[in-house]
Amino acid sequence: MLKAKIFVQLKPSVLDPQGKAVSNSLHNLGFSSVFETRISKYIEISFDSEDKARTAQETEKICKSLLANPNTESYHFELEEC
Amino acid sequence: MLKAKIFVQLKPSVLDPQGKAVSNSLHNLGFSSVFETRISKYIEISFDSEDKARTAQETEKICKSLLANPNTESYHFELEEC
Repeated sequence: MLKAKIFVQLKPSVLDPQGKAVSNSLHNLGFSSVFETRISKYIEISFDSEDKARTAQETEKICKSLLANPNTESYHFELEEC
Repeated sequence: MLKAKIFVQLKPSVLDPQGKAVSNSLHNLGFSSVFETRISKYIEISFDSEDKARTAQETEKICKSLLANPNTESYHFELEEC
């Protein structure tokens, strides 16, 4: 069993309106030292496989074909046994 | 400047319909070794502060009061300098 821990984040140059909304709320709640908030997706996929090289390739394909929007998002992942 | 890296995840006992939908899509795309998918939020908050202890307390409060639903979600975070 392998687990891919995948982070899908907006590219730094892309505005994050949801993060901006959270920053504003936090300022309104009195957290004045908050400077910036960025909200991303964190996805864990468990694979019924022991083949690390192949699973890494599959995870790469999964990120490209389904999880990340290549225009606005970047991704990285790590694989671990579980 | 400090950065809090916050993970907000559904509790293991809570059904994740979005994750289930991704699993189904991946099976349909031919990724048959996918066993389970869980989708979570990953939030980075930058603080204009150098006081680690106080920022950790604030992050704890922020998670409780805004970011996580205590009924269905758990959270953990780490703080690092940036």
